[in-house]
Amino acid sequence: MTLTASSDSVGIVIPQTQEFTAPLTLDCGVVLKSFSLVYETYGRLNAARDNAVLICHALSGDHHAAGFHSIDDPKPGWWDNCIGPGKPIDTNRFFVVCPNNLGGCGGSTGPLSINPASGKLYGADFPLVTVRDWVESQARLADTLSIDTWAAVMGGSLGGMQALQWAIDYPHRLRHAIVVAAASKLSPQNIAFNEVARHAIRSDANFHAGRYYEHGVVPEHGLMLARMLGHITYLSDDVLMARFGRELRDGKLNYGYDIEFQIESYLRYQGESFVKRFDANSYLLMTKSLDYFDPAARFGDSLKDAVARTDAKFLVASFSSDWRFSPARSREIVRALLDADLDVSYVEIDSELGHDSFLLNIPLYHAALRTYFQGITCHVV
Amino acid sequence: MTLTASSDSVGIVIPQTQEFTAPLTLDCGVVLKSFSLVYETYGRLNAARDNAVLICHALSGDHHAAGFHSIDDPKPGWWDNCIGPGKPIDTNRFFVVCPNNLGGCGGSTGPLSINPASGKLYGADFPLVTVRDWVESQARLADTLSIDTWAAVMGGSLGGMQALQWAIDYPHRLRHAIVVAAASKLSPQNIAFNEVARHAIRSDANFHAGRYYEHGVVPEHGLMLARMLGHITYLSDDVLMARFGRELRDGKLNYGYDIEFQIESYLRYQGESFVKRFDANSYLLMTKSLDYFDPAARFGDSLKDAVARTDAKFLVASFSSDWRFSPARSREIVRALLDADLDVSYVEIDSELGHDSFLLNIPLYHAALRTYFQGITCHVV
Repeated sequence: MTLTASSDSVGIVIPQTQEFTAPLTLDCGVVLKSFSLVYETYGRLNAARDNAVLICHALSGDHHAAGFHSIDDPKPGWWDNCIGPGKPIDTNRFFVVCPNNLGGCGGSTGPLSINPASGKLYGADFPLVTVRDWVESQARLADTLSIDTWAAVMGGSLGGMQALQWAIDYPHRLRHAIVVAAASKLSPQNIAFNEVARHAIRSDANFHAGRYYEHGVVPEHGLMLARMLGHITYLSDDVLMARFGRELRDGKLNYGYDIEFQIESYLRYQGESFVKRFDANSYLLMTKSLDYFDPAARFGDSLKDAVARTDAKFLVASFSSDWRFSPARSREIVRALLDADLDVSYVEIDSELGHDSFLLNIPLYHAALRTYFQGITCHVV
Repeated sequence: MTLTASSDSVGIVIPQTQEFTAPLTLDCGVVLKSFSLVYETYGRLNAARDNAVLICHALSGDHHAAGFHSIDDPKPGWWDNCIGPGKPIDTNRFFVVCPNNLGGCGGSTGPLSINPASGKLYGADFPLVTVRDWVESQARLADTLSIDTWAAVMGGSLGGMQALQWAIDYPHRLRHAIVVAAASKLSPQNIAFNEVARHAIRSDANFHAGRYYEHGVVPEHGLMLARMLGHITYLSDDVLMARFGRELRDGKLNYGYDIEFQIESYLRYQGESFVKRFDANSYLLMTKSLDYFDPAARFGDSLKDAVARTDAKFLVASFSSDWRFSPARSREIVRALLDADLDVSYVEIDSELGHDSFLLNIPLYHAALRTYFQGITCHVV
């Protein structure tokens, strides 16, 4: 257990699966007769059941937020720097739950599941799901875990949108919402980037209208392109300049289309790695869920009215160089929360690392999270 | 002649072709034994031959900058709002020359030309050309037109880079350089966007290693994607918000992958239109030329040293919401010119319209151009 023996790791974790047999009516109108969620937990639920924290993942995330899956696992979960004994989300105090979202490709019901109506993989037939659908499915998971009220619901980017939606849809089932590097709705530029990514996947000759599994192929070029494009928007121009500048891989120009600049090499590597771990149909529907997110729309376009019923307290965090969801977008959320007379803390972290900052161990950011979580009361484990 | 009768139009123009039979050694080492440039001219060269203005086009431009090609031509040239009798570049005073760049697809030698070595289209075998190569070919065009010194060399974006390169490579053959919405080199983010565009084209199943002509197809999805992505970077988030917001085409969500938001419709239209008018191999090499542009590199990374020999005067212009080549990038150029003790005017135009601003009739921008050109002395026509 060398890898997991470090005192601030949650160690080896085993994903669990919860089946839900009550029908779930999705926003799009489709009824899922049953579904399952894969999730991980870290720490222990206390007797008062008041120390549970829900972690919501972003576009390309999954349920594996912390710890290792085996003793020779080369990499821990995606938010391992933040979740563990003594870490900002301290598993000595909190019971952390992280599910894979419905429609994802980490094991929860989604395009890679069998469609009971056809006996085949859902593939492109899996219905489009929304942030509201995710919150509803997560509420059912809370029910099965007998968690009436979350101590906190937290996420970054699309995960932060779920935390915000929780406060709207279940205003009394969470005591704190932590919304990091998010926005209350996508701008047309955000949607435009998503549309280019979708077009890349759907126009790949191997896409086969989303039934690529049946042809033994994957739309790898399209998915790779989508991820390359995503990566540009996750990082700031400044950090790319600091990391790669105009450095040439071979030290000279080759006047051809192979990799010349190091930034090209980085992007292709990111794209190629992603294709091995993510499903194109899931990527498509995750981008749609982002596009659709606009919780104020049901409240006469007033985000203030949307959040008015909750008694949750909020921490909103943004990063100075994030141009995907800039600090200005977080401030829109903060303004609405203040207008609704809610208890809100806001921290704008100075970081050159762009949108990706929310995943990184930036000292001031983690200090802010740590301080905030220390202020969340709960009984001892 | 209804369309062209307006008093500020250059009217009907006929492209001309100039053959060059002296070999041209390109930066990449390839020697073009001969080549031709298609170009248009507006206004008349005066007897002193001191009123000639060279217009350099950008990534997707061509030689058709002003006027109409026929009486039923629905659209004038791409910079018609700027070039004509009484317009900022006043053809009553100036003789304007606009060539299609080598490697382009407007008629100059490029991928769509016959390769004399094979008797077939060059296609992907056309060598990669640089901004320096373009300047050299334009200098030869000046020679054939007996233009010893340009009154001005002007361009926006990649066109502005050519104007800057002119001052470096032919420091005494231009009296003014007008560099609009450009940069002295691409940032890694700029290169990254280009790389994604290239990857989209080159991974299209119809690309056939650039020999798509022989298969009777074009890599339309890839080229469309490249253009869609380009368009996002040409426009600011603010102008997209003002024009499209989150407006839905059908007034409601359809929970599918057809167009839902108006911004998606706009992007697809832009992509589809582009495929009909532009060649994918030309697009690929134009993006490479952008990536390679770094005139300071041959001068110990000192742009000041690169421009030190010229006696040209400069106008540099940028636009506040341009995030492709932001005002900060123009200021880098201005600083180098000032450090070299050159005569430079700089104007930063307040505009919400992003990089595309350089093509638009923005009153303060056109007023600045008009004033600057009025100050360029030349004999009467």
